[in-house]
Amino acid sequence: MKRWIAALGWLTIGGTALAQTDVTEAARAYREAHEAAILQETLDLLRLPNDAANREDILVNARHVVGLLEARGIDAQILEAGDASPAVYGALDVPGATRTLLLYIHYDGQPVEPENWASDPYDPVIRAGRLEDGAAILDNPLAGEIDPDWRIYARSSSDDKSPLIAILTAIDALRASGQGPNVNLRFFLEGEEEAGSPYLRELLEAHRNLLDADLWLIADGPIDTRGDPRVMLGVRGVTSMQITIHGAERVLHSGHYGNVAPNPAARLARLIASMRDDTGRVLINGFYDDVSPISEAARRYIEEGAFDEASLLSEPGIARTEWGPDAPYGEAVMVPALNILGLDAGTVGPGTRNAVPERASAAIGFRIVPGMSLERLREQVTAHIETQGYVILDREPTGAERLEHPMIAQIRWSSAGYSAASTDAEHPLIGHLIGLVDAASARPVRVVPLLGGSLPLAPIQDVTGTPFAIVPIVNPDNSQHASNENLRIGNLWDGIELYAQILADDWEDS
Amino acid sequence: MKRWIAALGWLTIGGTALAQTDVTEAARAYREAHEAAILQETLDLLRLPNDAANREDILVNARHVVGLLEARGIDAQILEAGDASPAVYGALDVPGATRTLLLYIHYDGQPVEPENWASDPYDPVIRAGRLEDGAAILDNPLAGEIDPDWRIYARSSSDDKSPLIAILTAIDALRASGQGPNVNLRFFLEGEEEAGSPYLRELLEAHRNLLDADLWLIADGPIDTRGDPRVMLGVRGVTSMQITIHGAERVLHSGHYGNVAPNPAARLARLIASMRDDTGRVLINGFYDDVSPISEAARRYIEEGAFDEASLLSEPGIARTEWGPDAPYGEAVMVPALNILGLDAGTVGPGTRNAVPERASAAIGFRIVPGMSLERLREQVTAHIETQGYVILDREPTGAERLEHPMIAQIRWSSAGYSAASTDAEHPLIGHLIGLVDAASARPVRVVPLLGGSLPLAPIQDVTGTPFAIVPIVNPDNSQHASNENLRIGNLWDGIELYAQILADDWEDS
Repeated sequence: MKRWIAALGWLTIGGTALAQTDVTEAARAYREAHEAAILQETLDLLRLPNDAANREDILVNARHVVGLLEARGIDAQILEAGDASPAVYGALDVPGATRTLLLYIHYDGQPVEPENWASDPYDPVIRAGRLEDGAAILDNPLAGEIDPDWRIYARSSSDDKSPLIAILTAIDALRASGQGPNVNLRFFLEGEEEAGSPYLRELLEAHRNLLDADLWLIADGPIDTRGDPRVMLGVRGVTSMQITIHGAERVLHSGHYGNVAPNPAARLARLIASMRDDTGRVLINGFYDDVSPISEAARRYIEEGAFDEASLLSEPGIARTEWGPDAPYGEAVMVPALNILGLDAGTVGPGTRNAVPERASAAIGFRIVPGMSLERLREQVTAHIETQGYVILDREPTGAERLEHPMIAQIRWSSAGYSAASTDAEHPLIGHLIGLVDAASARPVRVVPLLGGSLPLAPIQDVTGTPFAIVPIVNPDNSQHASNENLRIGNLWDGIELYAQILADDWEDS
Repeated sequence: MKRWIAALGWLTIGGTALAQTDVTEAARAYREAHEAAILQETLDLLRLPNDAANREDILVNARHVVGLLEARGIDAQILEAGDASPAVYGALDVPGATRTLLLYIHYDGQPVEPENWASDPYDPVIRAGRLEDGAAILDNPLAGEIDPDWRIYARSSSDDKSPLIAILTAIDALRASGQGPNVNLRFFLEGEEEAGSPYLRELLEAHRNLLDADLWLIADGPIDTRGDPRVMLGVRGVTSMQITIHGAERVLHSGHYGNVAPNPAARLARLIASMRDDTGRVLINGFYDDVSPISEAARRYIEEGAFDEASLLSEPGIARTEWGPDAPYGEAVMVPALNILGLDAGTVGPGTRNAVPERASAAIGFRIVPGMSLERLREQVTAHIETQGYVILDREPTGAERLEHPMIAQIRWSSAGYSAASTDAEHPLIGHLIGLVDAASARPVRVVPLLGGSLPLAPIQDVTGTPFAIVPIVNPDNSQHASNENLRIGNLWDGIELYAQILADDWEDS
């Protein structure tokens, strides 16, 4: 087993060192000889509208992706299950290989608001740099030399179509140079990730027999903001609720009813204050029962610079992490969070009325960590609100209920919600992966034990039991989920070299 | 001194009893003989647009009101001071009278939204009952017998032009029957009450020499919801503030920043919870220092039915007063209130975003009681917020301030604000007044020691030092401040008899 030693920056050991250099050189040479063709393949894929809500479009994408796999001799098929959007599956067995990697990408994209884009989101253009810097659209960019700082502007250029091109090109490059791939490959390409992966579990369960692998690699999300490659070993889960505290039946004069009508806004404030302190500690009974302490390995990766701590705080004007003056960013996102997403009651600002509101509502989001259960969380929160004296309803109270119960809370849980998922940082395959990612770049690899955000990886972990890691390639300023999503072409080039390194290895010493 | 004894319903004592009956009969006889003319005078006054914001219109009203006074031989003049809208002043000295009553009315009105009215707010109509009950507009209502349940629909029909007609007609009736008036009269008729009386203090100070009186009678607001006459001895004061808690510079992803970016909505909730408990008790240091306990007299009036407790609570669906399960309505409005008027942060409802808001705002209203000072209140609230760890600004924080101070609150106090004002319930003139109001009606008089709402009476009390009482005449369902404001004609008739009783008395035994 080869272990990555962060203190030394990057390191290769013994006989593999030369081979790794050869792989990078081979991948680079292949790319340099085929840049226009690689970009053409990328642009053709980006030209297909892929809003996850439009099943017809998704199917067109799925068929195109099947074509891209089959062009590489990968057995490809469309997987379906119930109401799920189609996933594309691919399998490539390599003679003599003993290990199998499963590559996860999603080919669907966020919806678009074309009026907010500088160019058609489904008619990709290449600009000579960043739109924000005034970079113009290039007329015939594939005709001559291609600058790695040029950018492709299109929906899903970064999230998440380009990683597929990077991986397929890596296979092409390894084959061209006779260096691989040296592991068996499986592809699971999802078509409804941006819709919240509502049927991912169903899809995985229905096709479980196709999904045996040693490791899932999730090629999604951006690299580190410092430009460094990164390996992410887990994500927080997420769910949310809406709570409405009811007062009188209607808005009442604050003079005639101040101290008479219960003030639902004040009560909501007290309820929230009973749930969470100013440092983010949750005061709900049992909330932390299933939370494990941060492991030594995770703490080490954080100390070694998993995140760009300073800029993550200073850039959006944060004096210090809410979790504690001394808790670094990486630790703050390794604990569960209770986020107040919104408050709404009565009137605020110039139109303020001197009135006691009849209701006050909050949207509350939870980010949970591995070990916590969404079901148990909901039970704990419900019990907490009851303990504060509230009768809980899932609808508007009746007149009789108002007169009977002085404290009424209406609660609705979001139907969407993911559990957290993570892979043990000490798993031998993870150590091997980190070494390969490190070898593929002159920049230090950043290992993130747990990402603060959420991805629907829990179904993968639950259904397959296979360890996973997120290995992204795209630029952090890609404007994903927003208008003018883009890909820096140099990141695609680096991604080819990164995945070439991963696929060239036989993974046998891990 | 004649004392009103509520337990006996109504009562007149000794030699005045007959006189009081005579007065009522004289007033009624006069009214019955002149109903069409009285209503015509009312309609002519209501036909003048009187939005307090339109100075030209206000001046037309002022001149018309001067004409109404002069027609009764009352010395009338327009009072001005600085930017104040004109007030109309009148004086009528009665030979032999030793007491002087000052009658306060405002002739301006709330703005109108004509599209929400069933008829032109400045083209009064008479309906054969309530609009809500489908009552039609009458074609020629003044031609025949007039039903007291008919209603006049027009802006200021109740608030506050009709009390002027009632009082002037009472004078006419007393003169016609040779029974009075038997007190000197002063009129102070305001033209900017609905604009918040911004220059009332200035007007009073500028013309203080004209305003000597034994008692101010404020003829504004509605009678009791049970249809009973009432005398109100004070009002709570009012002010409000806007507070914004600042988080990061921009909205941030709740996954990547949950527990990292301070959550301003959660902090606002804790701050509010630190200011007030679920029963309305205010937790701000010193808040109750200047609040006197509820007097015995006040408690007695409340016990005797100052308010229609049951319907005030049950009608808008309130299980029990917020102040306490056993605190009656009347006591709940005799203590100061901290009302959360509104909350605003992030997103709530179907469009909820999984994001940490960058700011959270609340509108907070205060209703204060006699003895409390607005200035001291503002100091206490400011000190409280500082004690909770906040740096207070009156503007947006700079980037440097955000990075230096983890807790920043932005505060703005409303420039509008009234102090509370009240008259001692044991004052001899008040006892006398209550007896007269009681004598004028077969229904029990309701004495309200302190109204929960606010009126700008503090300047009157401060500048003149004269006791006051509010003695209303109009129906409670008059839709004041809203569309389709109306006056039940029977209330105007009752008001004439009520004020005839008050003005016929010589007030010498009080």
